[in-house]
Amino acid sequence: MADRHPVICEVAPRDGFQSIAAPLPTQDKIAIIRDLAAAGCQRIEIGSFVSPKAIPQMADMRDITAAVRDLPARLSALVPNPRGAEDALAAGITELVYVFSASEAHNQNNVRQSVAQSIEGLARIVEVMPGGTDLRVDLATAFDCPFDGTVALEAVTDAVRAICAIAPRAGIALCDTTGRANPFTVAERFGTVMALPESRENSWAFHGHDTFGQGVANALAAWRAGVSVFDTAAAGLGGCPFAPGATGNTATEDVVFAFNEGGLDTGIDLATLLTVADRIAALPGAATGSHLRQVPRHRAA
Amino acid sequence: MADRHPVICEVAPRDGFQSIAAPLPTQDKIAIIRDLAAAGCQRIEIGSFVSPKAIPQMADMRDITAAVRDLPARLSALVPNPRGAEDALAAGITELVYVFSASEAHNQNNVRQSVAQSIEGLARIVEVMPGGTDLRVDLATAFDCPFDGTVALEAVTDAVRAICAIAPRAGIALCDTTGRANPFTVAERFGTVMALPESRENSWAFHGHDTFGQGVANALAAWRAGVSVFDTAAAGLGGCPFAPGATGNTATEDVVFAFNEGGLDTGIDLATLLTVADRIAALPGAATGSHLRQVPRHRAA
Repeated sequence: MADRHPVICEVAPRDGFQSIAAPLPTQDKIAIIRDLAAAGCQRIEIGSFVSPKAIPQMADMRDITAAVRDLPARLSALVPNPRGAEDALAAGITELVYVFSASEAHNQNNVRQSVAQSIEGLARIVEVMPGGTDLRVDLATAFDCPFDGTVALEAVTDAVRAICAIAPRAGIALCDTTGRANPFTVAERFGTVMALPESRENSWAFHGHDTFGQGVANALAAWRAGVSVFDTAAAGLGGCPFAPGATGNTATEDVVFAFNEGGLDTGIDLATLLTVADRIAALPGAATGSHLRQVPRHRAA
Repeated sequence: MADRHPVICEVAPRDGFQSIAAPLPTQDKIAIIRDLAAAGCQRIEIGSFVSPKAIPQMADMRDITAAVRDLPARLSALVPNPRGAEDALAAGITELVYVFSASEAHNQNNVRQSVAQSIEGLARIVEVMPGGTDLRVDLATAFDCPFDGTVALEAVTDAVRAICAIAPRAGIALCDTTGRANPFTVAERFGTVMALPESRENSWAFHGHDTFGQGVANALAAWRAGVSVFDTAAAGLGGCPFAPGATGNTATEDVVFAFNEGGLDTGIDLATLLTVADRIAALPGAATGSHLRQVPRHRAA
């Protein structure tokens, strides 16, 4: 444990950009991804391979992928179904992030199918993935559902067991989709799923939002539970369609600050990251939620 | 430890109101203090007995004290020197909160004297305190100083030892005056001072700000270290003169949410508290920093 380091997976280009309705210029998105890598982000989720009808912002994923593939960072893309996985692999993505929800209501709303159908989709993707490609499964609403409220722990463990049976070495993220998780529950749920005999070879990530002000506390609760990978978005870009006025993903700079100050190196240069965060915050239509961006720069980094 | 409950000390009427330059009507301040008690706040810091030249907002403390003394909550007031302590006791305050800083630069700026002079002042106050009155000592800049940066742990332990020698049964708060503390350091510093042989009979509080997004995480780090009393301000009222645009005290509602969701009862009714927080946020000149106030009410409480 002494050698463990926190790893940030920067999701502003995916979870953040998708919250902006008006399409951003492809070159701007590419430049931001490159800047994030230059700031030291070792993992970047660069977008989603989804129907451009569903999310027009993601219509240029092939061009973006081609333009950033040379970066030294580990790049991934979200896919909601086998069709998206095919498209992502064809575009040159080497790490797929497959998403489904622990709650039926959110899964229907998010990917238009049942949880059982999503699990079948996962199996189909695993079958066609070529050697040398990686898989992470994002379990959305692993704590709270915008439609059903608190999600039963059993729904989470059932879903995790299903993932482990199909993809025993995949990364698995418990996602606090709504930001309503609390640090006590984050610790409890990771403790439970990480102790499942079936999950022995899986690795773990926490995807959090700061809507209820628990973002940093939840990430640190996951860290103490043994989780090493954290999805965050520079500038806290995001916003939740089900919580008007609320902020989005936990800000990368707020989490990096916590780890840095605690002597835990994320590999990210905070001053450089804050410059990228400023650029992201200046995007037209960007809803941001960072704390660190608001304090004088010499105090922040 | 199983029976331990978190206790909120609501500081919006003190640390919050003092951040508003234009004097608020006395009746409005009284009404808010009464509403906070009605929401279940068991401890409320109702203001400061300071020179009205220094902080005009606090010029009506005698009237406020007289009007709220009947409340069932434990009421305290901040005093920066023996003169303030005399005034507070004369007004009927039964719990004094004496403040000085671990860093010389901040103590000079805040209370216009050296740390040694402040410690002498503490001794004078203890001498004159009548039976039946309580004392808490707030050690400001116990982590970070707006002028000197990181405050050495030794300055904190020296100050705590001095407090313990003079007031061996006082409450002691380590105050994150700037909000720049991080959860790792909060845990470490409380662990250190609580283990001092001299502090055996003292009780502990954590006073935090959310400027750097660490507010809830810092409070929970203190809780895990064994601290049970938390200074927070409804609506996150505050603002720091040394960090333009930054938020103030950690919002009571954000911390209460964390504890509530974790099954730890603070005695505060969150829905009622949010109504008071709305009232505070609507005060002219109020700078607020709450997360919970921004999400739909049925999801928050």
